[in-house]
Amino acid sequence: MAADQARSNRRVVLKRYVTGFPTEDDMELVVAAAGAVTLAVPPGSRSVLVKNLYLSCDPYMRGRMSKHDDGSYVQDFVPGEVLTTFGVSKVVASGHPDLKEGDLVWGMTGCEEYTLITNPESLFKINHPELPLSYYTGVLGMPGLTAYFGFFEISKPKKGEYVLVSAASGAVGQLVGQLAKITGCYVVGSAGSDEKVNLLKSKFGFDEAFNYKKEQDLNAALKRCFPEGIDIYFENVGGAMLDAVLLNMRNHGRIAACGMISQYNLEQQEGVRNLLCVVAKRIRMEGFIIMDHFGAYGKFEEEMVGHIKEGKIAYVEDVVEGLEKLPEALIGLFHGRNVGKQLVAVARE
Amino acid sequence: MAADQARSNRRVVLKRYVTGFPTEDDMELVVAAAGAVTLAVPPGSRSVLVKNLYLSCDPYMRGRMSKHDDGSYVQDFVPGEVLTTFGVSKVVASGHPDLKEGDLVWGMTGCEEYTLITNPESLFKINHPELPLSYYTGVLGMPGLTAYFGFFEISKPKKGEYVLVSAASGAVGQLVGQLAKITGCYVVGSAGSDEKVNLLKSKFGFDEAFNYKKEQDLNAALKRCFPEGIDIYFENVGGAMLDAVLLNMRNHGRIAACGMISQYNLEQQEGVRNLLCVVAKRIRMEGFIIMDHFGAYGKFEEEMVGHIKEGKIAYVEDVVEGLEKLPEALIGLFHGRNVGKQLVAVARE
Repeated sequence: MAADQARSNRRVVLKRYVTGFPTEDDMELVVAAAGAVTLAVPPGSRSVLVKNLYLSCDPYMRGRMSKHDDGSYVQDFVPGEVLTTFGVSKVVASGHPDLKEGDLVWGMTGCEEYTLITNPESLFKINHPELPLSYYTGVLGMPGLTAYFGFFEISKPKKGEYVLVSAASGAVGQLVGQLAKITGCYVVGSAGSDEKVNLLKSKFGFDEAFNYKKEQDLNAALKRCFPEGIDIYFENVGGAMLDAVLLNMRNHGRIAACGMISQYNLEQQEGVRNLLCVVAKRIRMEGFIIMDHFGAYGKFEEEMVGHIKEGKIAYVEDVVEGLEKLPEALIGLFHGRNVGKQLVAVARE
Repeated sequence: MAADQARSNRRVVLKRYVTGFPTEDDMELVVAAAGAVTLAVPPGSRSVLVKNLYLSCDPYMRGRMSKHDDGSYVQDFVPGEVLTTFGVSKVVASGHPDLKEGDLVWGMTGCEEYTLITNPESLFKINHPELPLSYYTGVLGMPGLTAYFGFFEISKPKKGEYVLVSAASGAVGQLVGQLAKITGCYVVGSAGSDEKVNLLKSKFGFDEAFNYKKEQDLNAALKRCFPEGIDIYFENVGGAMLDAVLLNMRNHGRIAACGMISQYNLEQQEGVRNLLCVVAKRIRMEGFIIMDHFGAYGKFEEEMVGHIKEGKIAYVEDVVEGLEKLPEALIGLFHGRNVGKQLVAVARE
């Protein structure tokens, strides 16, 4: 493709800041006129122009759709401007010495066909293009590192421990469960449909799983699944589940607080009443943001690729085709419509 | 005193398990007849008979006044039986090779005049009787180790960090504040009366303090005291304070969950809504029970004695005279009536 070729560009922009549940109408597909994108980087710039292949839809993006007066750990989206997300991209023009046309990378990019990346140092080269490239939005990307770092570094698992994962069939949860099994733990997953529960047991090797929407009493469900109590809770949902978990934690238990998707769209978060258990049971509850730990990516990538190639880790993706489907896919996360890691295929090469 | 001398014994017993706020009527002073106590240990036993000098009143004792079906980290009291607590005692008869008549010890004992200690390995010898013996119920006893371990080992303070202590004039809080100042931190205390607030600033060297009962809005009070946010929260109260603190924590902040006295007498604990901050701010919230860490006592004792002798640590005690005052003193804790470490002087020698 000629570096000076002009293209049109389609992009998903935020229409307005969101309160409560976002809807498709909070976003908009904007088509820039032919010639809007020149397939070149500005002369003298170290920027990189990429063509986006796969774009990731992740729960943390909900936070970016609201305005935070006191700052947040990740930049808020800006109304009228393109959304950004982690994606897999192909370099089409480069002013950076370490990247050249045709290189495959993953990292933060725009929810659009072509993106000019002005901080290409933030991109990771894709070292294993023999695996599905989309994996770099999931098992080999940000969610994979989240599962790996959160489970091993925050939860500090030991063989034989009892592990609960919530949102267990999601991009992160399915991996935490499989890493727990590799470690020799007993692992139970909670999810929001019978289909997902089946997937946990049949595909990912969870020892047990339950559909939280069908449980009258989460405390009773946990007591049934964990008669000895829970050593590690990998927290993806917050709210009522966290409250019930606290009652069922064992002494010296650990809660890796990765996310709390049940709370993201509430005007006021639910109250959690059982925090006294943190003292009595000597619980460590620790939050983490994986962007702080991208330095660990190289080691993670090789280890996870090994697991995948040996068939020790399976990964289920929920792929929608076409950039125009991104708003619907993103919103689906908050209604639990995705089965497995949600991503959007924008282009195949 | 002759080892075979017979004495009467007065003891405070629990009348019934408690729900909600305990009252004096939940306990009872029972006077055993003359001759009830023989000042000797059973022949061949390794037990130790002690005369109790000072008895400690501590918030965690509230938990022991209720029945826990699924166990607790410390044994529940038993209706009709004597309460137990940490105390300073003098050995009057010993079957244990390491303890002899006249030795001064501290450890778990009965709320009574004389106690037969059947597990004397649990007792600590008092190495610094040149200091007030009552200190071994406080600054040199369980609360002192709690402050020391909880601040240094759980909170991991660094010079220049911003520290909040709740229940700051209490047995533990006053020490945490002073240890924070020794470490070079900025420290703010919350307490429940102007008298206590004055004490924090004038006696213990807190940089700032506030009366939480006079604040309309705890979030605003914390923003006023911590315009840069809080690095370390030493948690003694729970509930609404914890909720407001979460909003004001800095990234990578630590919450040492020592106790939550505001919740101990509630049928249902208050809901804490701001736990999403644990994720977004990468907070580590960690509970601990000091009984797990008594192995660290020896090192602590020498270090704290050094601080006291150098005048770097002050300690305020609230001493009531006479075993019969123990129920009132214990209950006073839950109404914030004590100023400083609450203890009962049963005998002076």
